[in-house]
Amino acid sequence: MLSISQYREAFVEYLDEKIQVREPRNLYEPMKYILSLGGKRLRPVLVLMATEIFDSDYRKALDAALAIEIFHNFSLVHDDIMDDAPIRRGKETVHERWDINTGILSGDAMLINAYQLFENYEGNIFKELAQLFTKTAIEVCEGQQYDIDFETQEDVSIEDYLKMIEYKTAVLVGASLQMGAIVAETSDECKKAVYEYGKLLGIAFQLQDDYLDAFGDPKTFGKQLGGDIIENKKTFLYLKSLEASSKSEARQLEHLYTINPAETSGKIETVKALFENSGAARYTREEIEKYTRMAFEVLDKIEIPEEKKEPLRQFGESLMERQV
Amino acid sequence: MLSISQYREAFVEYLDEKIQVREPRNLYEPMKYILSLGGKRLRPVLVLMATEIFDSDYRKALDAALAIEIFHNFSLVHDDIMDDAPIRRGKETVHERWDINTGILSGDAMLINAYQLFENYEGNIFKELAQLFTKTAIEVCEGQQYDIDFETQEDVSIEDYLKMIEYKTAVLVGASLQMGAIVAETSDECKKAVYEYGKLLGIAFQLQDDYLDAFGDPKTFGKQLGGDIIENKKTFLYLKSLEASSKSEARQLEHLYTINPAETSGKIETVKALFENSGAARYTREEIEKYTRMAFEVLDKIEIPEEKKEPLRQFGESLMERQV
Repeated sequence: MLSISQYREAFVEYLDEKIQVREPRNLYEPMKYILSLGGKRLRPVLVLMATEIFDSDYRKALDAALAIEIFHNFSLVHDDIMDDAPIRRGKETVHERWDINTGILSGDAMLINAYQLFENYEGNIFKELAQLFTKTAIEVCEGQQYDIDFETQEDVSIEDYLKMIEYKTAVLVGASLQMGAIVAETSDECKKAVYEYGKLLGIAFQLQDDYLDAFGDPKTFGKQLGGDIIENKKTFLYLKSLEASSKSEARQLEHLYTINPAETSGKIETVKALFENSGAARYTREEIEKYTRMAFEVLDKIEIPEEKKEPLRQFGESLMERQV
Repeated sequence: MLSISQYREAFVEYLDEKIQVREPRNLYEPMKYILSLGGKRLRPVLVLMATEIFDSDYRKALDAALAIEIFHNFSLVHDDIMDDAPIRRGKETVHERWDINTGILSGDAMLINAYQLFENYEGNIFKELAQLFTKTAIEVCEGQQYDIDFETQEDVSIEDYLKMIEYKTAVLVGASLQMGAIVAETSDECKKAVYEYGKLLGIAFQLQDDYLDAFGDPKTFGKQLGGDIIENKKTFLYLKSLEASSKSEARQLEHLYTINPAETSGKIETVKALFENSGAARYTREEIEKYTRMAFEVLDKIEIPEEKKEPLRQFGESLMERQV
């Protein structure tokens, strides 16, 4: 098996070769642009890794990996329009560099293009890939809709929130691994288990992202610390704090999430203290651990040799080892 | 076989039963809304008709017909955002009734939903349907991109224009018929021929639409007469006039397509005179006849009993019989 960075290299080489700008250029240039902005390529790497773990050649899975990466980038292009985001990976977003109409139409073409890549697989594999892809893509749309809805919804429950991050983020991680398993034509049990591993890890990762946004180390956390608090985003920390706080503290927190002060540091510190004092910070750490542990337990039970599982375990560990 | 209106009724009944609003409501309500606005349901009716023409039960094709109708409505929702159109079928467009983000995301979900409906078919039929759908959907996106590009492009050729209407409109008519043929598991020759019939008829129909926009009977033409001229739209009539006119008349026509007078009737009359005098109006009538004739010639050659072809011929004739 290759290392993660070798899979990434092999994938990027394939992507550069396959994604060519053709006519009409205004449809395909934005596609090439967004796909060339880089990124960690986590999802396609997972597709390739899973294929080899289940004893097949990763090169067979390059088209499935590309489909997943194109879909992920389609969702970024459309989400960036919806969020009015100017920057993606340090560069202009597609609708900023071109315009909103170009972002909509190129995104549509990318979604269709992802399906097209599955045509390179034979009958049964084709159907399984397309079916898993469709189920996952619908869930990603539903997750995005829930995320939008929560901005204005009064009574978001912890359960609602977990479902939202599962759909918006985690299912695509699970699907990436399962696609590798499908290409390798392994057993249904293995396909299900590897999906579950990815999904649970995806949930743990997203919860950790929420946690680090408030309590991360500014040296190692990539984004602006406190960004979710500044934007009054109802994260797991916030929702759990509301649930666990006294009435008066809950009211204080709710009030803080209606204001947008120019000087943000005071608000951030007060909110973080409420997250700590309510026990929500500790509870969130425990939930991250719980989902990570559940993920590894699923991995333990997969009936393949231990050394085959090792790369997947290392991947999960490296994903979760960001300093808290 | 049923009559066109009976197929339509059966289809609408199926649509009403299948398209239910579920959670998250903001994703699925716009889908139900746009699909319930009515319309002629030409494409799904063609799917059902083609299935019976090739000796299968139209009920088998209801999911494929629904997929085609959902895809068509997805393209309307996204196109209406791009065109900033407030009204569709006499009602508010989706992005007007909700907002642009809702239009984008619901549209995305509709496109994925269309694919999901093919899952109700077995292995080979599934793959054939999904593959034809993908090819067609990509072409529809490319057609829409060409249409947008032409607004600002100086040198649009007649050939470019014909390709644009083929992709934007005609291929979906052809694909509708071919999907019925796929569900009926007829021969590859028949599948190809029936696609070709639909595509040629679609081109003829779109050229006729261009022609009637200028020269139609206000009593029978549904839209505002002269709408394309008012909007300076580079239609077949316009492009052919430029090609066939003297230099000075071409310059006059180009100038007229840079102005937007408040009083439009003078401009419309002058432009129509240029269309007539250049011979473009006559040439367009001949092209409509040519594509219609080619369509019927393709139909003639399909090797099925004459009475089977009769409904398709009648459909084509009723589509083209609008008064010129």
